[in-house]
Amino acid sequence: MTAYADYVPLTFHDAAGRFTGGNDSPRAYLERCLETIALREPLVKAFTAINEAGARAAADASADRWKAGKPLSPIDGMPIAIKDLLETRDMPTEMGCAAMKGNFPKRDNAAVWALRQAGAVILGKTVTAELGGSHPGPTTNPFGPGHTPGGSSSGSAAAVGANMVPAAIGTQVGGSIIRPAAYCGNFALKPTQGGINRGERQATSQSTHGPHAGCLEDMWQVAIEIAKRCGGDRGSLGLVGPDSLPAAIKPDRLLVLETEGWRDVDAATKAGFAQVLAQLKAAGVTLIHRGDNPLVEALEQALANGRSICNGITSWENRWYQRGMLDAAPNGLSERAKATLARAEAMTVDDYRRSLLARHQAQLAHMQVAPLADAAITLSCPGPAPLWAGDVPGQPLAPRPTGDFVFNAPSSMLFAPVVTLPLMSVGGLPVGVQVMGQQYEDARMTGIARWLKDTVKRVST
Amino acid sequence: MTAYADYVPLTFHDAAGRFTGGNDSPRAYLERCLETIALREPLVKAFTAINEAGARAAADASADRWKAGKPLSPIDGMPIAIKDLLETRDMPTEMGCAAMKGNFPKRDNAAVWALRQAGAVILGKTVTAELGGSHPGPTTNPFGPGHTPGGSSSGSAAAVGANMVPAAIGTQVGGSIIRPAAYCGNFALKPTQGGINRGERQATSQSTHGPHAGCLEDMWQVAIEIAKRCGGDRGSLGLVGPDSLPAAIKPDRLLVLETEGWRDVDAATKAGFAQVLAQLKAAGVTLIHRGDNPLVEALEQALANGRSICNGITSWENRWYQRGMLDAAPNGLSERAKATLARAEAMTVDDYRRSLLARHQAQLAHMQVAPLADAAITLSCPGPAPLWAGDVPGQPLAPRPTGDFVFNAPSSMLFAPVVTLPLMSVGGLPVGVQVMGQQYEDARMTGIARWLKDTVKRVST
Repeated sequence: MTAYADYVPLTFHDAAGRFTGGNDSPRAYLERCLETIALREPLVKAFTAINEAGARAAADASADRWKAGKPLSPIDGMPIAIKDLLETRDMPTEMGCAAMKGNFPKRDNAAVWALRQAGAVILGKTVTAELGGSHPGPTTNPFGPGHTPGGSSSGSAAAVGANMVPAAIGTQVGGSIIRPAAYCGNFALKPTQGGINRGERQATSQSTHGPHAGCLEDMWQVAIEIAKRCGGDRGSLGLVGPDSLPAAIKPDRLLVLETEGWRDVDAATKAGFAQVLAQLKAAGVTLIHRGDNPLVEALEQALANGRSICNGITSWENRWYQRGMLDAAPNGLSERAKATLARAEAMTVDDYRRSLLARHQAQLAHMQVAPLADAAITLSCPGPAPLWAGDVPGQPLAPRPTGDFVFNAPSSMLFAPVVTLPLMSVGGLPVGVQVMGQQYEDARMTGIARWLKDTVKRVST
Repeated sequence: MTAYADYVPLTFHDAAGRFTGGNDSPRAYLERCLETIALREPLVKAFTAINEAGARAAADASADRWKAGKPLSPIDGMPIAIKDLLETRDMPTEMGCAAMKGNFPKRDNAAVWALRQAGAVILGKTVTAELGGSHPGPTTNPFGPGHTPGGSSSGSAAAVGANMVPAAIGTQVGGSIIRPAAYCGNFALKPTQGGINRGERQATSQSTHGPHAGCLEDMWQVAIEIAKRCGGDRGSLGLVGPDSLPAAIKPDRLLVLETEGWRDVDAATKAGFAQVLAQLKAAGVTLIHRGDNPLVEALEQALANGRSICNGITSWENRWYQRGMLDAAPNGLSERAKATLARAEAMTVDDYRRSLLARHQAQLAHMQVAPLADAAITLSCPGPAPLWAGDVPGQPLAPRPTGDFVFNAPSSMLFAPVVTLPLMSVGGLPVGVQVMGQQYEDARMTGIARWLKDTVKRVST
């Protein structure tokens, strides 16, 4: 375990420069990752599978390309971990789910395919909460093993936070990228809905793929290299932006959103966030709160039931495949997943349509605030990762074992791009702050995040 | 083989009334279907699998419900065939593709699930052109065995045209419902994009599921019973409309669209279509042609490259899964599918984006004509089903073995609802006429189709 105060993230973009000279190589970089994994994996438990031989072969091939001065991309040779919801041709895809045990379709998800085309080293598969939901896997928080790493991208966030890999792919439907990233000290991008091609994972109307990384440079590079090769979802423009990390953008005005989550935030986290805002004010940023403008208040009200809207939409959209799974394997789903399915099966199609309307109304309210500010800023999670000691027998439905997605439902239902930054430490654990833009402003949000990272000194409370 | 002039379609809605009284039963109805299949399947070759035992059990259960006066829906007991792209828990799903041989996921597609919930009898799987593309299966046209049944929903259209089932489910990305329906004398609905939940088949941005049937009553009933139970695609409102066939709607004005296809239409088909239009005029409908209004001309121009736009979008969206298939099974795809994949792999993401823009521009042009007329009317195919004797060795890329989708690309790329009706006979073979509306006007188009069926006498040329 690393104390968060001592944490220096693992980065790749600054190593690549050494590969041509021969002072370092993708293979040596990979071996360092494997050493870290050997040291920390027994406690962190981030991985479900590791393909060491395949990774070494890919790293050697990459080393040859760098030596020849012909890397396939700036991420050629980067070891990357893939959330175990995405299919990979060389490792099983079991989705944290007993019913999927042994599933091995031997094909690459579109994003995985694109990463390989860019020369990235697909090192392993990472633990996901069951089917991307809330029932947790074995992963622990790299900065506090008694705490959850968050979910559902538990292993991707923890693997980055534990310096096992410089970057990992996560997925988000409600809060599954941004929350674990915030709990594990990652930078992460939850792109505009449709921004990164989900391939066979285009299963729900508000899920996305996004990168977790130790720095903004690697985060952006992974995202744009995927989008350059396989674009966005079917029918979407896909992520568009510069070939490397966008320049820093100083925001003139920021909306400070409370959202449904604010009432659940603990005092130390509130105090830390206030210090972040004070630094922004001191840097000349105008902060706009809900009381300052009726359109901001309207947006807050449209988001006030975000969790419930997201849960309704997603559980409805998943009910057929989960019912099929359960019928085929009656013991293949957790009690939590069964309870979610039962709620979904009690819905009518008109219940679903009402939730879609609420989501669309919130999107309109969000579009209306576009002229008011450069971005919105808010916490990425309601506080540091909560303690989680595992399920107590007889209490199979204990709520939120991977933490609360209340601060993530808004950007998910708004289809809006979000970048989370590790700007806070609360009780010795990381807490993220996020900036959110209008749809397709992924590059602008990354530029604003860069300015924030350069400007705001991390606060500890 | 039945001569088209003598064809009396098989219907279900009028049989159901007899089930309560005991003069008929779902089991007896099914047995009649099985007899027809025994008689005609050796030549028509519509099915890839039939679950006789399962269908008989389902029909018996339905018979009990009707006797008790408690049918689950008006289609309780209806034998339905399912295109072999959709998964069914009791039959393999091989998609007309060697690489998928033996694929048996043992789960129901959302629409299949909904049909079972409504009491329908899932009788069998029908032949699809390979992966829903153009490489044909063995099915022949029920009105002329030397002719193609059309594709890719070849078996669904032929099974209905041969009176083997009263209804079948097809799918369309380019022209795969409407064209085979038009060649086989079916009524069929290609719904608004997203109108019927595609379940695991939500793989491309312009594919849809839709019913083929022997009459409008059964066509609509199948569609609405599915939509009532599982709605539309993720994020879509889904098909909305009355609980049974909408009332007939007499259109005041109809746009007569030429589209890219008109120049390919043979003289006899043109003459037949002119007779249909003459009947409409005589009934008091105002016909609006491209020369009558610059907005109609703009729409025609936006559709002028419809085939190429549709092909670009769809082949790009399919490239990852098809590449994975080909890598895993180098002999698992036809030369036609390989050639399509090669074209897709030569595209860049910006080529794809340009096609999306063209599609979206066409949609805007279509929205602009909404106030001009009640619907658009055009041929459903460029003429009767062409002869197809199978591939000639050494010519594996002979074009369009299942006919030309040129009259179907427009509604597919416009995401617009279309109903095709068997209003014409050309050279003794059926030719369809279609009405197209704005998105979500599925019920209105069905109402207009009903009026057309009641008003227009079938023309023979």
